[in-house]
Amino acid sequence: MSVPQTIACLSVPFRTSRSLVACSRRVCCSSCLQLPARLRFASTGIVRISSTKPKTSTMSVPTIDRDYLDGLLKRRFFFAPAFDIYGGVSGLYDYGPPGCALQANIVDVWRKHFVLEEDMLEVDCTMLTPYEVLKTSGHVDKFADWMCRDPATGEIFRVDHLVEEVLESRLKGDKEARGQATEIPDGVEEKKRKKKVKEIKAVKLDDAVVAEYEEVLAKIDGYSGPELGELMKKYNIVNPATGGPLSEPLEFNLMFETAIGPSGQLKGYLRPETAQGQFLNFSKLLDSNNTKMPFASASIGKSFRNEISPRSGLLRVREFLMAEIEHFVDPLNKSHPRFPEVSDTKLRLLSKTTQQAGRTEVTEVTIGEAVQTGLVDNETLGYFLARIYMFLIKIGVDHNRLRFRQHMANEMAHYAADCWDAELHTSYGWIECVGCADRSAYDLTVHSNRTNEKLVVRQTLAEPLTVEAFEVELDKKKFGPKFKKDGKKIEQFLTTRTQCELEDLAKELSEKLKITADVDGVAAPVEIEKSIISIEKKTRLEHVREYTPNVIEPSFGIGRILYSMIEHNFWIRPESDQRAVLSFPPVIAPTKVLLVPLSNNEAFEPLMKELSRLLRRAGVPAKVDDSSATIGRRYARNDELGTPFGITVDFQSVQDRTVTLRERDSTKQVRGTVEQIITAVQRMVGQDAVPWEEGTKGLASFEAASE
Amino acid sequence: MSVPQTIACLSVPFRTSRSLVACSRRVCCSSCLQLPARLRFASTGIVRISSTKPKTSTMSVPTIDRDYLDGLLKRRFFFAPAFDIYGGVSGLYDYGPPGCALQANIVDVWRKHFVLEEDMLEVDCTMLTPYEVLKTSGHVDKFADWMCRDPATGEIFRVDHLVEEVLESRLKGDKEARGQATEIPDGVEEKKRKKKVKEIKAVKLDDAVVAEYEEVLAKIDGYSGPELGELMKKYNIVNPATGGPLSEPLEFNLMFETAIGPSGQLKGYLRPETAQGQFLNFSKLLDSNNTKMPFASASIGKSFRNEISPRSGLLRVREFLMAEIEHFVDPLNKSHPRFPEVSDTKLRLLSKTTQQAGRTEVTEVTIGEAVQTGLVDNETLGYFLARIYMFLIKIGVDHNRLRFRQHMANEMAHYAADCWDAELHTSYGWIECVGCADRSAYDLTVHSNRTNEKLVVRQTLAEPLTVEAFEVELDKKKFGPKFKKDGKKIEQFLTTRTQCELEDLAKELSEKLKITADVDGVAAPVEIEKSIISIEKKTRLEHVREYTPNVIEPSFGIGRILYSMIEHNFWIRPESDQRAVLSFPPVIAPTKVLLVPLSNNEAFEPLMKELSRLLRRAGVPAKVDDSSATIGRRYARNDELGTPFGITVDFQSVQDRTVTLRERDSTKQVRGTVEQIITAVQRMVGQDAVPWEEGTKGLASFEAASE
Repeated sequence: MSVPQTIACLSVPFRTSRSLVACSRRVCCSSCLQLPARLRFASTGIVRISSTKPKTSTMSVPTIDRDYLDGLLKRRFFFAPAFDIYGGVSGLYDYGPPGCALQANIVDVWRKHFVLEEDMLEVDCTMLTPYEVLKTSGHVDKFADWMCRDPATGEIFRVDHLVEEVLESRLKGDKEARGQATEIPDGVEEKKRKKKVKEIKAVKLDDAVVAEYEEVLAKIDGYSGPELGELMKKYNIVNPATGGPLSEPLEFNLMFETAIGPSGQLKGYLRPETAQGQFLNFSKLLDSNNTKMPFASASIGKSFRNEISPRSGLLRVREFLMAEIEHFVDPLNKSHPRFPEVSDTKLRLLSKTTQQAGRTEVTEVTIGEAVQTGLVDNETLGYFLARIYMFLIKIGVDHNRLRFRQHMANEMAHYAADCWDAELHTSYGWIECVGCADRSAYDLTVHSNRTNEKLVVRQTLAEPLTVEAFEVELDKKKFGPKFKKDGKKIEQFLTTRTQCELEDLAKELSEKLKITADVDGVAAPVEIEKSIISIEKKTRLEHVREYTPNVIEPSFGIGRILYSMIEHNFWIRPESDQRAVLSFPPVIAPTKVLLVPLSNNEAFEPLMKELSRLLRRAGVPAKVDDSSATIGRRYARNDELGTPFGITVDFQSVQDRTVTLRERDSTKQVRGTVEQIITAVQRMVGQDAVPWEEGTKGLASFEAASE
Repeated sequence: MSVPQTIACLSVPFRTSRSLVACSRRVCCSSCLQLPARLRFASTGIVRISSTKPKTSTMSVPTIDRDYLDGLLKRRFFFAPAFDIYGGVSGLYDYGPPGCALQANIVDVWRKHFVLEEDMLEVDCTMLTPYEVLKTSGHVDKFADWMCRDPATGEIFRVDHLVEEVLESRLKGDKEARGQATEIPDGVEEKKRKKKVKEIKAVKLDDAVVAEYEEVLAKIDGYSGPELGELMKKYNIVNPATGGPLSEPLEFNLMFETAIGPSGQLKGYLRPETAQGQFLNFSKLLDSNNTKMPFASASIGKSFRNEISPRSGLLRVREFLMAEIEHFVDPLNKSHPRFPEVSDTKLRLLSKTTQQAGRTEVTEVTIGEAVQTGLVDNETLGYFLARIYMFLIKIGVDHNRLRFRQHMANEMAHYAADCWDAELHTSYGWIECVGCADRSAYDLTVHSNRTNEKLVVRQTLAEPLTVEAFEVELDKKKFGPKFKKDGKKIEQFLTTRTQCELEDLAKELSEKLKITADVDGVAAPVEIEKSIISIEKKTRLEHVREYTPNVIEPSFGIGRILYSMIEHNFWIRPESDQRAVLSFPPVIAPTKVLLVPLSNNEAFEPLMKELSRLLRRAGVPAKVDDSSATIGRRYARNDELGTPFGITVDFQSVQDRTVTLRERDSTKQVRGTVEQIITAVQRMVGQDAVPWEEGTKGLASFEAASE
């Protein structure tokens, strides 16, 4: 089913929209390849901040009439602002029936593609999370953005966004003053265009100032809070609406806080990601897998972020659906048994070296090649990149608007081995929709250290290993009476020393005939004499290897994928600008079949009912539209809902039980018996759907009256 | 597949468990048919409190060894306390792989059974909910329990639970002192039994006091906070552990509170139910349904309740999955077009009249009869009761441990027409798992009044209706200049008067030649003279009828259903008390097929891989167990996971591609080719599964060595 997408889209005049104005740099032009979106703090353990961003691209991007698309999505209730009749709450959206079905179908494909296919262990963990857990993971301290407040009006701004918008507007004013064209795209309606131009104050800037502003903008995501405060002072940045002064930047934690239980004492948060629950249950999961390695767990559920100023529709919201995988693997062996199955998959990769050279062109290579050359760190990571690609293509993402961007060194935490984001191009720019990081042993290690619970794998070795190591021995008979209640703390102190520390202690013991140490929870320094303790290097055979597994984490933002995928499948029939189509693949289309009687003549009723029943039994979601609108109008309505097939019942149907079947994108029709048509539909929906030509082979083509 | 459940269960000695001690009245004996569970405040708009509770039953209840079951569920990671390695948080549970799959399968059946079958409009609304919405719905004011605090220790008690436990313990002490048997069941282990008896202080009470205590306990759910406070004083109820005094009862709202956005000004809650989102989107949903009535919306998602003292495992938790339907219907016509399809369904009903007579026996009648005799208020309500029944049976609930209990007058709000709960019997007693209420027009009305947004249906009348009504007319030329900026408020005042109020105003106008009114937002009383206003009764033809629909609301607590269903399907093979079985219906079993090679001989590998691949392609979730345990041990493990089928690969399989297929409950086996066995399995799982005898017809039965 090939769709003349680019051509059709170009036939629509480009218009601007309110949300576009609020976010003026994110128009779909090649000069604006920002990465406006942070999916999660991913591999870094902190809010990801990329200080060097690709500024140019060679990609030609189809233009989307976003006003029109927004209108369609609202009119058909794909989604809408939550609490609309109460005035709404920004950053919160409800999914209506088509959006909800689309989301459920994407999740269903995801579950089959990843969880069932790979025998992953799916868990469902709570969203309420106590303080301690998120303190350990680093979220309490570092999961924050910078904001500033207008003391006069109470308004709150996200500082990096504010600095960005003010400097950009000054640069536009400068261009205006110099008589250069401002960056308002040609397609913008004349009225809106005039309004936009009028808003820009034409003030010429010094050439040096222009250069300075441009440099700041290029680095805007890299500034710390205090640095942003300096910029505000230096460039006299105030409340753009009132001219009033603003406070110093304050750190604002993005987690929603609440109290668990009636005492109000147990502080908790709504989880900002689903991953922590999987790490905490690691030992139970390993047991569930009969202690076999490697294995993966998975989780699908809502996460929450109290964004300072949510914008860009579904792309930056306060409550969102995530699907996350934690693949636990031996750090010494990151090969993947099924890698050969995917190694020929070609991906469009944007490497860190390309980005560091200030360029953004993608290289299309097979994942086999990418792993072999070391561009992608290891087979398991590569395997998941290929599987993510296949998933995205299956649900209707455009290959040419999908790239994998590697994190640069300054985006990644010290422990991360490698990290790639699947980014989808939309009218807001390139959007990070899936992160895929090798997080090493970080998460399991911090939780294990905090709780003293071992989160490790014990591997029985085929051949025992000879190990040389310092060992501590205590004379229990003397140790116990001497240290009494402190004994346990001292013992724990000794058992948690590293080999290097033990070496030092052994030296001290042999030199001073005693060791002295500060032990947590014991007031005075502890002295232990040689008669009580021995610390010596010993050789022993190990039959079991104990290790903390590494984690490869593919993490999906379902709402972002859903929205980007909608843009990729949106087009307008060239013959009329009223007729928009959403060309969803049948497997994720909210409704698979539209059932339309020619008119509301009673004669059609029995056959309509029978068709409904047969389709339901065949497991094919169908909707009836027996309203009084014309057939063409009814089909147009369902083209906007992305319904791939339509069955029409007419007077001939009543006589001979034949019906027509229409394909959404081509509007081609065929005719056959009820049974033939249902069989054809069944073959064309579902996971392994066949294309129209194959599904309808042998059926007579049907010439409909012009729609 | 009939399971010898009762017999097998009785072969297990009855033991008590920790949670049983904490909740001693909720043992599964006939004297204890409490309704410990509140699913939501359902039809009342407040926490449901039933003051008269059935005290007896004629039902004989199978005994469950709950200690054993709890151990199994934890060992197999169906679910476990969340944040376990951090010490856990009470009332929060994580679902491990089998529990998560069970939950997903129940939700999948629910969606197909209700949403797809009835063409419902599914929505996915946010959990974060602003204060205003829940203020309007009544939750801010009334969704609360009573607690009291020990100022010395900081401990917090739920008052009704505390009074209940203290009085019960005194009654037990009295029985002990009188030399009567205490209520500890026979099966309890001798050691635990001695401990329990020791905990009871044998103090004899006056006969009058015993009678008083028993009366209080019978009415315990009916007391208000101040009344509970009086009881505490009267009976000198203190902290049972320390003997210290407790505070007066305080109201504790059960919603989790948080702040939305960076200002901290917008108060919000985590929703306590999913229903509000459906009410708020009513107009959009009606549009999505082409303005056709009746229709239903549905929603599946998490809700939250900050329970004071969560207990009883999954039955009273702080975060839980709900599935709710709002069926919108014309208040003048509550018939249901598909009622005839279900009218012969027999349900076990416990009517309010039976309960009011202090009895609890159920009557088994067809729903057709129940609606005809007026026992169930209307067809739509009856239709859903039957559909709820079919759903519960489909997912493995025991018909004999399921009853529909009607709410008594004092449980229902004034606006509710009728309300029935589907209750499932478990070792904790009867548990409310599904509520089904006719909520009249309450919800739409309160939100509409608060927001001034019409939440109504406009029905074009076939024949116009003649309506007599008072109408207001203003002389705009005089009105505007006179009232200036207050004009709008006065106009709104006039247009929102009821017919009765208008009649009074008309009278005032004709008598005093002016009207005087206090108008919201206008300082002085407003006077309008007859030259400006006319208020007269007029006759007009109405072509459109405008009405607020009524709502029938089936509301499902998925966690409670899941747990009760597990109990209904739990039994122990009579031949050995080590071998527990969970006899889940194949459609909801977490894994459908266990694949076991006879040993870990390499010869079996190719066929094992092929079987995995073929089952995956057939859409049948399967797991491999190639561990070194014996075949019997591996099957036993998977009986505990409820896996209905097992395929064994042996040396003969390698030669002739035949494998054996085992059925979990009967342990019967048949043998056939790989293709035959996969076809058989495919027919026996899924929504319209055929039973074992039919699925394996024609296959040779196979005599396995004893397991």
